[in-house]
Amino acid sequence: MITKTLKDKIKKITLIISDVDGVLTDGTIFIGADGTEFKRFNVEDGTGAAFARLASIPIVLISGRKSEATSIRAKELKIEHCFQGNLDKLNPYKQICKIYNIQPENIAYIGDGLIDIPVMLESGFSVAPVNAHQPVKDISDYISKKSGGEGVLREVVELILKEKGIYNNTLEQMKKKIYKT
Amino acid sequence: MITKTLKDKIKKITLIISDVDGVLTDGTIFIGADGTEFKRFNVEDGTGAAFARLASIPIVLISGRKSEATSIRAKELKIEHCFQGNLDKLNPYKQICKIYNIQPENIAYIGDGLIDIPVMLESGFSVAPVNAHQPVKDISDYISKKSGGEGVLREVVELILKEKGIYNNTLEQMKKKIYKT
Amino acid sequence: MITKTLKDKIKKITLIISDVDGVLTDGTIFIGADGTEFKRFNVEDGTGAAFARLASIPIVLISGRKSEATSIRAKELKIEHCFQGNLDKLNPYKQICKIYNIQPENIAYIGDGLIDIPVMLESGFSVAPVNAHQPVKDISDYISKKSGGEGVLREVVELILKEKGIYNNTLEQMKKKIYKT
Amino acid sequence: MITKTLKDKIKKITLIISDVDGVLTDGTIFIGADGTEFKRFNVEDGTGAAFARLASIPIVLISGRKSEATSIRAKELKIEHCFQGNLDKLNPYKQICKIYNIQPENIAYIGDGLIDIPVMLESGFSVAPVNAHQPVKDISDYISKKSGGEGVLREVVELILKEKGIYNNTLEQMKKKIYKT
Repeated sequence: MITKTLKDKIKKITLIISDVDGVLTDGTIFIGADGTEFKRFNVEDGTGAAFARLASIPIVLISGRKSEATSIRAKELKIEHCFQGNLDKLNPYKQICKIYNIQPENIAYIGDGLIDIPVMLESGFSVAPVNAHQPVKDISDYISKKSGGEGVLREVVELILKEKGIYNNTLEQMKKKIYKT
Repeated sequence: MITKTLKDKIKKITLIISDVDGVLTDGTIFIGADGTEFKRFNVEDGTGAAFARLASIPIVLISGRKSEATSIRAKELKIEHCFQGNLDKLNPYKQICKIYNIQPENIAYIGDGLIDIPVMLESGFSVAPVNAHQPVKDISDYISKKSGGEGVLREVVELILKEKGIYNNTLEQMKKKIYKT
Repeated sequence: MITKTLKDKIKKITLIISDVDGVLTDGTIFIGADGTEFKRFNVEDGTGAAFARLASIPIVLISGRKSEATSIRAKELKIEHCFQGNLDKLNPYKQICKIYNIQPENIAYIGDGLIDIPVMLESGFSVAPVNAHQPVKDISDYISKKSGGEGVLREVVELILKEKGIYNNTLEQMKKKIYKT
Repeated sequence: MITKTLKDKIKKITLIISDVDGVLTDGTIFIGADGTEFKRFNVEDGTGAAFARLASIPIVLISGRKSEATSIRAKELKIEHCFQGNLDKLNPYKQICKIYNIQPENIAYIGDGLIDIPVMLESGFSVAPVNAHQPVKDISDYISKKSGGEGVLREVVELILKEKGIYNNTLEQMKKKIYKT
């Protein structure tokens, strides 16, 4: 399933960019009579973000939609850069390359929508959740087992760490940090 | 599945009317102890509304239930006319014909409940979500693959654009608008 | 599936009592950091309540749990009597018999939990949602096709109206009221 | 499925510790634009907690995440001790042993995440929900039929009461308390 070529691409990844609605959530939004918007995130992706942090792989979010709920979740996940309200995702994408001084081949991008296609095509490793739109799945390097909102980010982080051969080491660090053994 | 006759009917569509609960949502409503009501919408239908806008096909909502959450969502989707609290949907339906100066044969109607039947029978193209009540599905021209709240509106918009032969062109416009290429 | 004996029992029903959590909802409760509780109801049961009202069959709620969200939903469904915080449901059950001057054989009861069993055994027609606990399903006269929160009340109302031979007439009244034809 | 050895282990259980996210909930968290967090609990676990209370088996919660919603739910379930924000769960685990003056072999622990593994390995009886991560399921004594948020706690309480041979007696007490017969 993961070819030699793909393995080589994954090994070069040093940063992950993720879409929000449909990746960190199942794409539904809860709108209240007072205008408050809620999104439904998954604690699994919190663990995924912690893994990435321990492996020194920054996570960045680019969302087409603008929502304070996303900012709050980003803060919780200790994500430093969170671009919102960008239909043209190539613009923040380029900024990210500058901020982190990296090339697109070092970037893994997770997205589920049409507006994610250009940045997915640009990236070294592109992932679509299993329930993404077909045109997005068609151009992605990898299709996650999890659906959006079920822990896709964690699945991708673990996959990258494994292919880079640093999963066990990161897990040990996590254990030490958590269990203090 | 889509007969020649149906194709001809779809080609005439210039406006879409959609029910809210059970179409833009899965029919559930979240009621809080303080009386606040939340509805659970899907970002997919936001993309569908954007497609329709680019193709100059207005979307109008008619909801039997009255909810501020619906007004907020309509505004987000840049939907100009949103009729609420109408059990007799034929009344706002006639107003819509006047406002847009069109005939029922130019209207696609998406609904899932008994109160949607009269306006569905009136419309040029009627759609019921796959999880709608049987009597509604029985009289509908088309049954969507998506269930209510999973992006039915987007599915219908894409179907109409395809049958009208303007899907690819609209997609290109969308890409230009988004990607600025 | 519905035996002659059961049909005779259903024909005598003149009032419906329903449990709340697990029947009008799927049993989940949303608790916020500020203590607000949300319940997730279904618009389908709103239609069911409207049908029952037109057929002059009152609906009463008895909930073991106390929640303002339930009171608000009861008001929306134009349900006059809503008993909450009663683990011993036989007590409000007897009050209901007095208020409406009816016998248990005239009562249909919908419940999914152990605390519903005594009143279900008492009632003329007892219904458990398909996802109820086995001991509850074991003693129920009928198991609904819908799961809790998916429109169980509506299913039961329609079943009762059909067995009483007043479904079509009620539907016509509903249409007249709605469509004003 | 439940071996003689496991039965002997379950018989010694006098206290239950449960994780929160992914056990009492399905792992999703609802985050609002104003920063409010909601969790989605299940009334089933309320019944489970009532059963445990009648059988004099205390329930304690240890959550890696800190949330006011958890404190509110713990209070509702009449749970006295609720430890939050502990990634190293062995620390509160030891406190619980002291508070209740019991040994790990008397503790049943329900968890679904990597951080639950050390305390699960320590405990007399460890349970993972069917949808837990594989490494957690691999080291657990028992895998619940229910998924997180569907009533796992209730399932575990009933299992323990049955294996201890006190289920029927507790059920009778519950009935007496509820039905006042």
